[in-house]
Amino acid sequence: MVAIVSASLTQFGKRRESLFDLAKESSLPILRSFRDDIDFVVVSNSYSGEFNGVSGLNNLVTTYLSLDYVPSIRVDNTSGSGGSSVLVAKSLLDSGIARSVLVIGVEKMSTLKTRDVTSVISSLLPPRERSVGISVPSLASLMAKIYMEKYGAKREAIAQVAVKNHRNGAKNPYAHIRKEVSLDDVLSSTVVADPLTQFEFCPISDGSASILMVRDQDALSFTSKPVYIKGVAMGSDSSHITDRENLLEMRSVRIAGEKARRMSGVTRFDFAELHDMATILEIVEGEALGLLREGEGWKYYMEGETDIDGEIPINTSGGLNSKGHPIGASGVAQLVESFLQVRGEAGDRQVKNARVGLSLSMAGFGNSATVTIVGDEP
Amino acid sequence: MVAIVSASLTQFGKRRESLFDLAKESSLPILRSFRDDIDFVVVSNSYSGEFNGVSGLNNLVTTYLSLDYVPSIRVDNTSGSGGSSVLVAKSLLDSGIARSVLVIGVEKMSTLKTRDVTSVISSLLPPRERSVGISVPSLASLMAKIYMEKYGAKREAIAQVAVKNHRNGAKNPYAHIRKEVSLDDVLSSTVVADPLTQFEFCPISDGSASILMVRDQDALSFTSKPVYIKGVAMGSDSSHITDRENLLEMRSVRIAGEKARRMSGVTRFDFAELHDMATILEIVEGEALGLLREGEGWKYYMEGETDIDGEIPINTSGGLNSKGHPIGASGVAQLVESFLQVRGEAGDRQVKNARVGLSLSMAGFGNSATVTIVGDEP
Repeated sequence: MVAIVSASLTQFGKRRESLFDLAKESSLPILRSFRDDIDFVVVSNSYSGEFNGVSGLNNLVTTYLSLDYVPSIRVDNTSGSGGSSVLVAKSLLDSGIARSVLVIGVEKMSTLKTRDVTSVISSLLPPRERSVGISVPSLASLMAKIYMEKYGAKREAIAQVAVKNHRNGAKNPYAHIRKEVSLDDVLSSTVVADPLTQFEFCPISDGSASILMVRDQDALSFTSKPVYIKGVAMGSDSSHITDRENLLEMRSVRIAGEKARRMSGVTRFDFAELHDMATILEIVEGEALGLLREGEGWKYYMEGETDIDGEIPINTSGGLNSKGHPIGASGVAQLVESFLQVRGEAGDRQVKNARVGLSLSMAGFGNSATVTIVGDEP
Repeated sequence: MVAIVSASLTQFGKRRESLFDLAKESSLPILRSFRDDIDFVVVSNSYSGEFNGVSGLNNLVTTYLSLDYVPSIRVDNTSGSGGSSVLVAKSLLDSGIARSVLVIGVEKMSTLKTRDVTSVISSLLPPRERSVGISVPSLASLMAKIYMEKYGAKREAIAQVAVKNHRNGAKNPYAHIRKEVSLDDVLSSTVVADPLTQFEFCPISDGSASILMVRDQDALSFTSKPVYIKGVAMGSDSSHITDRENLLEMRSVRIAGEKARRMSGVTRFDFAELHDMATILEIVEGEALGLLREGEGWKYYMEGETDIDGEIPINTSGGLNSKGHPIGASGVAQLVESFLQVRGEAGDRQVKNARVGLSLSMAGFGNSATVTIVGDEP
């Protein structure tokens, strides 16, 4: 297997810097120590063409970082690009093509107005569904209604996801939104897709995150505290979301979780980073991954069991909801948080005795999902 | 190592069909035989956002092909996406993440006018070089001048690349341009970038190519005539082309070739598919790869030694020059040609006793290069 030996990220938010400068900012701390050890670069990015008028991003980034002679590719899987890039990096290491891979997740979205960003993101929907006005927020709205009706879940429990994630984000110096919100704030803010409100969706952010991955047998020559990738797997589901029999099932998430668990042999987790593009998704994903009991996930939020000091802390980083969601960077940033947690370096967000964690990087509305399981032992 | 067990491509050219229908057309012959065996899809594509207003292409394609539950990613490396995708597919197989990978290369460029296509492609140049008006054709022009001066090469020899490639393309039912041209036609056609003329650059094409890759130990259960990938490697160079000491060196190509040769143990080749975006590139690449003697590559063309029945046949498919260059599809299409040649199924273009071949998939102006070596034995 493989290990993460260094990790870094930029402040997320509305940034003045270019796409290139963001990539540089997140990777520079890694390059300072390990520049000469890097022999492959995977750039996780989806929309450099649409948002920044740039193509061939991977080669431009390696040149910008003075890594001209290091082979590189761009891996795209929309919001799930980060997890997919980790999967590819692991494969390159396993196959012997590379002995170390720098994964740089980066996206700069604030170049466009909100309406135009939404239009770009909607281009991932199948033409058929796009033409009838389906959007990712409208699907989240539908999911929330079905979930509440099926399980008798309380509206407050869903809003509580945002309260918890904003609280965590306020403790994360790299988060986009560093302000706590109350349950009342969430419930009374502007409705985006009934019943979900503004605070329950991730903001539009710029940002970058980088990790250095090596083969596990080499890890200790890079750092005395490697974080090992114990399992990584991908699942897929139809892009025709209206064709899915059960919107709550999240097949791609479940399959990716099952495969990654089998690969790792891990059965219980000290923390998890999930894809909370909308609050309801965090709950349904937690259930699909077996972190929360099916149909009862919402209760964990009422009882504080997903808080940093709870039974299963979720999104200690603030999640997409508060940390922000620069598309190509998000999945990599989840691994940065996992790296910090396992090494005991997460500051105010530190989970006690965090040894094993899970992260879920998801594309579309569960069109694709990658689960990565990390721990302090190989 | 790994093997190609099935391969297919669409007619290249200006096509009415959508991006999705092109992907379907090239992969359908493979799906008909092996649908249930496919457990990963790599989509090689660079510009679905810019040309087609589509993101999340890999998931949309798997849904379109009724492969909803098959994990997928998009791999981008501009013109070199195809080679990069083959490298990633090999890694996924080596690492055990997949037991079979369908690589679909696809691009639909004719949605935009020529001027807009050129503008999109130019977005791969570093902002610094883009701003002073450098373009890929202008670099080819410079390369041709330097080459002619340094080696005393004849202008006719460079033009002869186009004559030979059009002759080969005329024999390829899938080629965009199926019309022979004479040396005089080439020399007297419109000058695009002095001294190079219109016939010496690839056209703007739509098209798709697909290959199915499996581990070599599984190959014979798919076909009695697998084509084995004996080596695949990537090299890189600066995107700041004006920083390169010697424009003729093509460092990325040389390094990729050396690494792939070492991996494969192969020293001589029966045919090669090169990245002839401009005629001069085919000659300089052939030298960088050791297929043609340095400084004497042009002479091979004067003497017909790169013809189908020559000493080292190059671009039997017609190459980018005549077959066309749908960005994400080109590198995969090279492997389709190699597959046909090694299996003895290349029809009028068949090289006698073709057992081992090389293909070069290149990004930018040698910013990145992937060399794949195939043969009839593992």
